[in-house]
Amino acid sequence: MSDRHELALIDWIRQQAKPAVGLQVGIGDDAAVWQVGGKSLLLTTDMLMEDVDFLLSEVSAASIGHKAMAVNLSDIAAMAGRPLVALVAVALPKNRGIEFARELHQGMQTLADQFEVAIIGGDTNTWSNSLVVTVTLIGEATDRGPVQRSGAKPGDWLFVTGPLGGSIRGKHLSFTPRIHEALELHKLVDLHAMIDISDGLSADLHHILDESGVGATLFAESIPLTDAAQQITDDRSPLEHSLSDGEDFELLFTVSTADGRKLLAGECAVPVFHIGEVEAVPNGRLRMPNGTIIPLKRSGWEHSF
Amino acid sequence: MSDRHELALIDWIRQQAKPAVGLQVGIGDDAAVWQVGGKSLLLTTDMLMEDVDFLLSEVSAASIGHKAMAVNLSDIAAMAGRPLVALVAVALPKNRGIEFARELHQGMQTLADQFEVAIIGGDTNTWSNSLVVTVTLIGEATDRGPVQRSGAKPGDWLFVTGPLGGSIRGKHLSFTPRIHEALELHKLVDLHAMIDISDGLSADLHHILDESGVGATLFAESIPLTDAAQQITDDRSPLEHSLSDGEDFELLFTVSTADGRKLLAGECAVPVFHIGEVEAVPNGRLRMPNGTIIPLKRSGWEHSF
Repeated sequence: MSDRHELALIDWIRQQAKPAVGLQVGIGDDAAVWQVGGKSLLLTTDMLMEDVDFLLSEVSAASIGHKAMAVNLSDIAAMAGRPLVALVAVALPKNRGIEFARELHQGMQTLADQFEVAIIGGDTNTWSNSLVVTVTLIGEATDRGPVQRSGAKPGDWLFVTGPLGGSIRGKHLSFTPRIHEALELHKLVDLHAMIDISDGLSADLHHILDESGVGATLFAESIPLTDAAQQITDDRSPLEHSLSDGEDFELLFTVSTADGRKLLAGECAVPVFHIGEVEAVPNGRLRMPNGTIIPLKRSGWEHSF
Repeated sequence: MSDRHELALIDWIRQQAKPAVGLQVGIGDDAAVWQVGGKSLLLTTDMLMEDVDFLLSEVSAASIGHKAMAVNLSDIAAMAGRPLVALVAVALPKNRGIEFARELHQGMQTLADQFEVAIIGGDTNTWSNSLVVTVTLIGEATDRGPVQRSGAKPGDWLFVTGPLGGSIRGKHLSFTPRIHEALELHKLVDLHAMIDISDGLSADLHHILDESGVGATLFAESIPLTDAAQQITDDRSPLEHSLSDGEDFELLFTVSTADGRKLLAGECAVPVFHIGEVEAVPNGRLRMPNGTIIPLKRSGWEHSF
């Protein structure tokens, strides 16, 4: 199955979904939003697979556990929510000992503790195959409500919470999910749309554009680059890495111009970078340092500059 | 890792768990019970793995989807709850086409529809490896509250909702989770303790005994046998199959003698079988048709008759 098929499949699954009592946001955002007993619960699940999301030969069990919890926390952050409880299902390779399993769990538990998340259930299995970890995380929206992908408006400013690119060098395993940053921003300004950067800046920007029915221009020189992105010596520039590498797990969000100015005026303790503007004209564009504007491909991997 | 190590690991994980606001039942029952916004939510997660829970060469994608949803529904049934919403994470083998993925999803969706469960979120992945499906299901307790494993009392009668044994012949894939039966029973009588039979009658009875701090005697001649258990010709008797085969997904529950009589008096539309009695003396026992009482091993696989 190709990536194109995978996207078609997800679209098809989304079409199959039935309406449910209290369901405010279903498949297609970073988390579902489900009203129950007067609360807005946020629900998300992520599965990590050996050799896809990590290499067992290169990383510790604890860091896999960290990542498994962190990617879910990042989804709750993308909705500007507070995480509450988690369930964990694992398929452990039979040839790994119980110490490995404990370290894996400890990696999850440590990050869960840090964000006051209780692990309240699970399913522990062993098999003669690769490691798979699924975490399901449930949080709640704040009184200001959840932030969706669909709220971007022409004229909005685009921001990210940190430098991008080259996360494969380590950040994809060790990153801190932007829960506190999202809550802080949500208090200070009216967040119109938000997503966490997991597929890459360009791809995730397009998710916001698709759901909001708008376009955008990114300012190439304003995109903050990680040291890793600047140090990689391959056939792609640091800018290309920042646009196309996945798993930065920074937040990409849009706010009104007025709120954007407020954020830049230093009223915000969270580091934010103004990297572009939302427009009524559809599709994504990239304004290069020399002023040229070029189309921004959905997948950074394909773009041609 | 051996089964013994696996159980030790689960105990250890249970010890690591922190208390959480609103958490009424944590790791160690069929589902967690979490109070939120005045509701008692029931939460469970189960992972199915190729070559462990099903053989891709022998079963349809739809029946794998059915089973993945059904095992979770069975956990909600074991708490006498109503299922509400589900999240689905899959690792799809790259060499299977999109039709396979659709059929798998359709298997889940059909059963979800049947029990009015909405699939509200998911994570769809592909990899060059075996099929893994994780479903997380959330339900709610009825006004009578959730039924735990820990409420069995000496003098209680033990019941099951259907015949046992030999589910490997097909029932483990095609079974109907006992949601309606559990709700009906919960209305009619005071269910003291309940569990779904996934590990096998003997093992799951011991889970109730452990959590309730009691013992029990099963009546060998009263245990209902499936046709499959009666037809298997191997070195184990049909009785042994009924005690030790897993994945029957019938409910095992205890009620007071008075409520037990009520169920047998024909006031109950749900088929129930009176198979034993709870006692103050610890451990499980088996009363053979000739009156001999022998110890009941935790795992049916090991017992010596």
